[in-house]
Amino acid sequence: MMTIRRLDLADAGVLLGGARAHAARIGVPMCIAITDEAGHLLAFERMDGGKLTSVTIAIDKAFTAAGARRATHEYGALSQPGQPVWGIVSAIGGRFMTVGGGLPVSVDGDVVGGIGVSSGTPEQDRAVAQAGIDAWLARLG
Amino acid sequence: MMTIRRLDLADAGVLLGGARAHAARIGVPMCIAITDEAGHLLAFERMDGGKLTSVTIAIDKAFTAAGARRATHEYGALSQPGQPVWGIVSAIGGRFMTVGGGLPVSVDGDVVGGIGVSSGTPEQDRAVAQAGIDAWLARLG
Amino acid sequence: MMTIRRLDLADAGVLLGGARAHAARIGVPMCIAITDEAGHLLAFERMDGGKLTSVTIAIDKAFTAAGARRATHEYGALSQPGQPVWGIVSAIGGRFMTVGGGLPVSVDGDVVGGIGVSSGTPEQDRAVAQAGIDAWLARLG
Amino acid sequence: MMTIRRLDLADAGVLLGGARAHAARIGVPMCIAITDEAGHLLAFERMDGGKLTSVTIAIDKAFTAAGARRATHEYGALSQPGQPVWGIVSAIGGRFMTVGGGLPVSVDGDVVGGIGVSSGTPEQDRAVAQAGIDAWLARLG
Repeated sequence: MMTIRRLDLADAGVLLGGARAHAARIGVPMCIAITDEAGHLLAFERMDGGKLTSVTIAIDKAFTAAGARRATHEYGALSQPGQPVWGIVSAIGGRFMTVGGGLPVSVDGDVVGGIGVSSGTPEQDRAVAQAGIDAWLARLG
Repeated sequence: MMTIRRLDLADAGVLLGGARAHAARIGVPMCIAITDEAGHLLAFERMDGGKLTSVTIAIDKAFTAAGARRATHEYGALSQPGQPVWGIVSAIGGRFMTVGGGLPVSVDGDVVGGIGVSSGTPEQDRAVAQAGIDAWLARLG
Repeated sequence: MMTIRRLDLADAGVLLGGARAHAARIGVPMCIAITDEAGHLLAFERMDGGKLTSVTIAIDKAFTAAGARRATHEYGALSQPGQPVWGIVSAIGGRFMTVGGGLPVSVDGDVVGGIGVSSGTPEQDRAVAQAGIDAWLARLG
Repeated sequence: MMTIRRLDLADAGVLLGGARAHAARIGVPMCIAITDEAGHLLAFERMDGGKLTSVTIAIDKAFTAAGARRATHEYGALSQPGQPVWGIVSAIGGRFMTVGGGLPVSVDGDVVGGIGVSSGTPEQDRAVAQAGIDAWLARLG
């Protein structure tokens, strides 16, 4: 058997809080999703004004980042025409996301969860996701 | 045109908090989902120990209760063999839930959102959903 | 963070082997699926003669048993007309299985995976799944 | 009527073994799927450390290669912007894979199954799939 570590709900709250604070700072209401390392949803918030289509997109960005252990914007680059994973975009019933805003949450090299953000530009989404991770890492100490 | 009222994220937090407190009281870690009146997810929490299959089920209970403006346990009764809505259970790609634990959130007769709870027995799920609504109504004053 | 235990591929091989041996003994070629505790597929075999529709059914039985931490035949009883979880059958896009043959794999009270078997009668499927678990527990010592 | 040849579970074991050995050699834990000529799953293994998103992707690569009787990386080239099968990528609910790592398994010009590999780079995935086929062909003698 394996022993693995994964985020719990308290961790998810810290990640959500850090992301929400940054979203408020830049004035873009976001959908923010936190999954465990297996890609299953732990916590979610749609800030007032977040886009309705972004509910699923945020959840799927977190799922992709956790499950594939890689940021979704990296898959965006790798899946361009002529690039190695061209065509990955519609995998897993369309859940595989290649738009920026999904980041794996890692500690000591192990992926323990994922965070996915949607409603802004992909750069804004990514910055908000990173702010969530920064807040969580700061708390870990 | 219509003007409608719907839950915002602050309301969702109150609903989640009331539900979470009751779940803790009865010692059953739950998945708890809050949707707006359109059935779109506003907030979600999987308490530590909540069932993985309950993530989708909780979300779909809230979706059903908000969208159909009726408690899911009522659809459970109405969809029994020989009853009026027999067969509704697999509607909307299986999202239509007839298991107790999904309640519409209403004010002055208007449905403004939904709450869905899963991981316990249907009775526990329903009681936890009701506790969320009670906490929210108490706050409304 | 949480620390959890889950099956690895070596465990899955023991579970598969125990199940396959029992299926051979009773002369019913089976589809046999092993998931980790998060419901993600670890290993799968379709014995020669196993039913094609049983590929997905076996995988979904293992997914349900692991994710809901309960045997699928128990959900079969609980979801009969008039029973508490009537209507659960079509949940999660139809993946939630209430036909016997899906069992959680547990150790010291923790669910660490799931096994799902399909192609025979539900009783045969369940016996084959149990034989997989028995072989694995015997190996644990 | 037609008489067709297809892989059986013993063949699948040889294919899996050859692929697994090569994956171990290059140090990349893989998800490896074997289907029959009809695209239905015969056997699957997620090596310890294989990506969770790769479970479905490996299965769908094998499905595509068997069903379309062509390597998935060839479809990657053919589906580039302006190329003949542009747009094929989202076919069949997203199951049609154009990322390398899916190969048909053929004998005497007949496709008798498919192998799909995922978790590494597409080139690694393809090399591991080819190693599976090589092991199987060597056994055929």
